Amino acid sequence: MRHLLSTKDLAREEAIVILDVAEDMAEVAGREVPRLPALRGKTVVNLFYEDSTRTRISFEAAAKRLSADVINFSAKGSSVSKGESLKDTAQTLAAMGADAVVVRHPASGAPDVLARGGWIDAGIVNAGDGTHEHPTQALLDAFTIRRRLHGAAARGHGLDGCRVTIVGDILHSRVARSNVWLLTALGARVSLVAPATLMPVALDRWPVELGYDLDAAIAAGPDVIMMLRIQAERMHDAFFPNAREYSRQWGLDDERMAALPERSMIMHPGPMNRGLEISAGAADSPRSTIREQVANGVSVRMAVLYLLLSGAMEGKA
Amino acid sequence: MRHLLSTKDLAREEAIVILDVAEDMAEVAGREVPRLPALRGKTVVNLFYEDSTRTRISFEAAAKRLSADVINFSAKGSSVSKGESLKDTAQTLAAMGADAVVVRHPASGAPDVLARGGWIDAGIVNAGDGTHEHPTQALLDAFTIRRRLHGAAARGHGLDGCRVTIVGDILHSRVARSNVWLLTALGARVSLVAPATLMPVALDRWPVELGYDLDAAIAAGPDVIMMLRIQAERMHDAFFPNAREYSRQWGLDDERMAALPERSMIMHPGPMNRGLEISAGAADSPRSTIREQVANGVSVRMAVLYLLLSGAMEGKA
Amino acid sequence: MRHLLSTKDLAREEAIVILDVAEDMAEVAGREVPRLPALRGKTVVNLFYEDSTRTRISFEAAAKRLSADVINFSAKGSSVSKGESLKDTAQTLAAMGADAVVVRHPASGAPDVLARGGWIDAGIVNAGDGTHEHPTQALLDAFTIRRRLHGAAARGHGLDGCRVTIVGDILHSRVARSNVWLLTALGARVSLVAPATLMPVALDRWPVELGYDLDAAIAAGPDVIMMLRIQAERMHDAFFPNAREYSRQWGLDDERMAALPERSMIMHPGPMNRGLEISAGAADSPRSTIREQVANGVSVRMAVLYLLLSGAMEGKA
Repeated sequence: MRHLLSTKDLAREEAIVILDVAEDMAEVAGREVPRLPALRGKTVVNLFYEDSTRTRISFEAAAKRLSADVINFSAKGSSVSKGESLKDTAQTLAAMGADAVVVRHPASGAPDVLARGGWIDAGIVNAGDGTHEHPTQALLDAFTIRRRLHGAAARGHGLDGCRVTIVGDILHSRVARSNVWLLTALGARVSLVAPATLMPVALDRWPVELGYDLDAAIAAGPDVIMMLRIQAERMHDAFFPNAREYSRQWGLDDERMAALPERSMIMHPGPMNRGLEISAGAADSPRSTIREQVANGVSVRMAVLYLLLSGAMEGKA
Repeated sequence: MRHLLSTKDLAREEAIVILDVAEDMAEVAGREVPRLPALRGKTVVNLFYEDSTRTRISFEAAAKRLSADVINFSAKGSSVSKGESLKDTAQTLAAMGADAVVVRHPASGAPDVLARGGWIDAGIVNAGDGTHEHPTQALLDAFTIRRRLHGAAARGHGLDGCRVTIVGDILHSRVARSNVWLLTALGARVSLVAPATLMPVALDRWPVELGYDLDAAIAAGPDVIMMLRIQAERMHDAFFPNAREYSRQWGLDDERMAALPERSMIMHPGPMNRGLEISAGAADSPRSTIREQVANGVSVRMAVLYLLLSGAMEGKA
Repeated sequence: MRHLLSTKDLAREEAIVILDVAEDMAEVAGREVPRLPALRGKTVVNLFYEDSTRTRISFEAAAKRLSADVINFSAKGSSVSKGESLKDTAQTLAAMGADAVVVRHPASGAPDVLARGGWIDAGIVNAGDGTHEHPTQALLDAFTIRRRLHGAAARGHGLDGCRVTIVGDILHSRVARSNVWLLTALGARVSLVAPATLMPVALDRWPVELGYDLDAAIAAGPDVIMMLRIQAERMHDAFFPNAREYSRQWGLDDERMAALPERSMIMHPGPMNRGLEISAGAADSPRSTIREQVANGVSVRMAVLYLLLSGAMEGKA
């Protein structure tokens, strides 16, 4: 594996290797050995063109536990915002000796441009690009589901037969896209449930079922229900229902949680709008995996950085 | 000691332990051994909801000298500013494996909420909350006074009988509050001197004397005079005297310095407004402890992080 | 060497020592030994009063490769922006134990004030001050030229007889100033080429030739042509030609590149405005040293930090 740009082109076996290595990392993070020397002397650059403190510090914690050096490069106020091209920025980071570049960018496809431009040898990790993909989020979601289903025996498993329902603003969600491809590759069956105005139009080849009624989706008894974050700035769009209406029709409230099977997991990529797309009761219930998702995020990112920088998956993707 | 939230609930013996450990740290910082391995593999998060570069880098330097990993989390522009609750932020940091969280917050009581919420196991250090407390500032002030009074023999001592006068905007000062409780617990006698409009109203149970005349306070010959910073943004309040008037009546100028006993220490938490609450002559005089305060700040914060994270004071507070 | 404030007062022998140590550093960065323990336990503070992510991360990477601790102090939003004096900031950094301070400041001369104020013992490195100097940029430029000219045998060499032409907004360029002094000290012959409105007036004692015609300068066949960055914010000044006109008359386009001798190096301090002062063809041609300049920047900054902090050049400057 040279880069991690998307989950769409990740084969089932590759995904399982990443999840299995993340199991190793999670075990180590059992904290007797808080730091692994694996990436000593390697430099990881966090190149963030959008603010995302949570994702940035998750990658930073992952890199530091592997003993890498971390340099944070916020594109705000930098020469980038003065109009420097992605090419020149890439060449600069290459010349400075970056071994991996974790990139968050508002433009869909920017990490691919970085990886395929030939300007930098570093491994590129997509940490979210426009409305395209956010592959480490999907990997940590898959890891979390697999662990809940299989516990200590999770290694080697996919998610065969697992039924996952993703609810909310699918149209703008890179988390939903990355999950659709990854969970499907791992054998899960994915349904998308959203108001028609927030469902993408060209879904012909997406390997999913569509639904427009949350209560019907809940009645179908999914193994996992994943609530997407509603972005406040979208609430003013004409095609968007108002917050109260959205919450009533598309929020996972306590009543809907009660209608879910006992075994159903409740997921959310965070940060949550409590009381909007998810109630406090649902967020804090034992079925909720939300805290595990964050903890697993560090393990999964350790696995990804390790696989990219140690050359362990060289030639695989 | 699990957390350091305030000095109000710090017993004399606990405070002396912290100051004694800070002596050990200050000795180490004698720089033959620039780094201690004590906190290797521990993660300290600086969670700052207000800008404060000085306090942040003092904690960062302290943590790094103990070999901890430091992650800076500025709440500006993060999901926090998008409305994420303190609870969710705490759970995120917990899940990411933070061992200590140093928190600066504009709301009084926020660090208590973090510590008592049950959302995170990490040790919480209050780095300033609203107008409530700033306990490490008071500890470094006490440490500085004790060192000047007792030199190398300071260990084990309190500040019994020491007379400390705090001057300025007491009403809004968390530094003053933390010092009142700590210095009193250590046996000092504290006086507050301020214009009536900048003195808090409900002082019944504060163990202090009040004064409204700086020259009278100086004539009383205090061992320590601590000048508080005037915040420029307050100067426009109706109840606030203008800068020139404030300086004339409440500033420590060269003439007032000359009226102090030779042994009096001049303190200021920084950053100073030279020429406003303190003259350049007073700030730079040999009686001034201002540079020592900054240096001691690193030693005291090393001691606090060490005591929280090594479990050395477990069960004590 | 106690500080690096300018190239103007750098003797030829001193400059050659720095360049030779940078050769050692560049060899190490051949990456078998990604980290040197030379500055373990030393603290380098990046004190930036202006945004400059590129320069900041170059110094940060250099310091980390030498195992120093790095603390980033952005003056924005800090007490500095609340009016704290340079003196108080310096004393704060001193008290916190900074061993070196890398300072970028909008005011010409600020690093000298820091170094000569007597407030801090740390080594001061000028990382760009107003329109005055940017010495590490000139050192990396000299290093890059020397390496291209002499390859592995570069050690000990100056730049005797090398003809360097600097083109563009000389008036506002600290890069040009630092290069004039350094390259001249190393034996090069420097020409400045600019529109009359962007040429400084008082050039009597600058050891340079002046030109006002880029095509004539190119016809003279320089060994090096260094294109300066045009700052967008200057384009609105009345005395400044508009962008299209500037590009036509003062830009290094493909045609002008073709008119240069085969051996001529094309340099740019970055970040570039492609299509304005330099064409993409020129920037990406094999004659361009732009990526080498960035990589060499890390080696040169490693050398400077090493020489300042190890005391190896003590008493020399």
